[in-house]
Amino acid sequence: MDERGMLAVAVEEARAGLAEGGIPIGAALFDANGTLLGRGHNRRVQDGDASTHGETAAFRAAGRRASYRDTIMVTTLSPCWYCSGLVRQFGIPRVVIGEATTFSGGHDWLAEHGVGITILDDPECVGLMTDFIEARPELWFEDIGEDIGKD
Amino acid sequence: MDERGMLAVAVEEARAGLAEGGIPIGAALFDANGTLLGRGHNRRVQDGDASTHGETAAFRAAGRRASYRDTIMVTTLSPCWYCSGLVRQFGIPRVVIGEATTFSGGHDWLAEHGVGITILDDPECVGLMTDFIEARPELWFEDIGEDIGKD
Repeated sequence: MDERGMLAVAVEEARAGLAEGGIPIGAALFDANGTLLGRGHNRRVQDGDASTHGETAAFRAAGRRASYRDTIMVTTLSPCWYCSGLVRQFGIPRVVIGEATTFSGGHDWLAEHGVGITILDDPECVGLMTDFIEARPELWFEDIGEDIGKD
Repeated sequence: MDERGMLAVAVEEARAGLAEGGIPIGAALFDANGTLLGRGHNRRVQDGDASTHGETAAFRAAGRRASYRDTIMVTTLSPCWYCSGLVRQFGIPRVVIGEATTFSGGHDWLAEHGVGITILDDPECVGLMTDFIEARPELWFEDIGEDIGKD
């Protein structure tokens, strides 16, 4: 499966989250051959769980693994520091990102530490987040830990 | 509650994890007044869940919150990159660490980004990890994403 094919799985997850009333960010973990290991999406709203971002959901769904050296994390949006830390700690060597226009997390930091980063500038991913941030800004800022109107 | 009192809660969690056959790392999230918001421990072995570290378990247990500006993360061990990323992303302003001798994660990076870091050099925390790493090195290296004997 190529990068666009892998991203399509993450986008399916993002759309599933949106349909549930949640934050439309999805991710999937693949092995180096493009075999799907796990997939998931942000579940802050659905489960009241601030710890489940798209990337952590996909990572968890892939189950307990001894090594991630042959894996690829694919996500609809630039990974936040939490999810970037996950990638670095577990040695995931490659991250494919739908877009980094509406939000820029830790992907440059990951690249500095040897992680291969591809940003696909996917219009569908940009559209999902642009529409969502416009519709639910308070929910988006909550998800990235930014207090608005409080400082 | 003072730092030692808060650490005692995290140590209880670490010991609970050890008693379950798991990795003895515990954490707890408090508010600035020392009120407990959530507590938890590493559950890699117990749940087959690589995503549940002590800090992420405590964070999840605290429930969905709009802000973490008044919180303190207390952990028995220096937070790995994954858990350090969690602290940075959600703006947790202070981390109290039992020890950073047996493992050093991202606490210096957090300090560079304005997070208040206290390392208590607690002998009980050091003992828990020293004994565990000696007894189950393969499990420990799996938990921090280090391949041993494979490179």
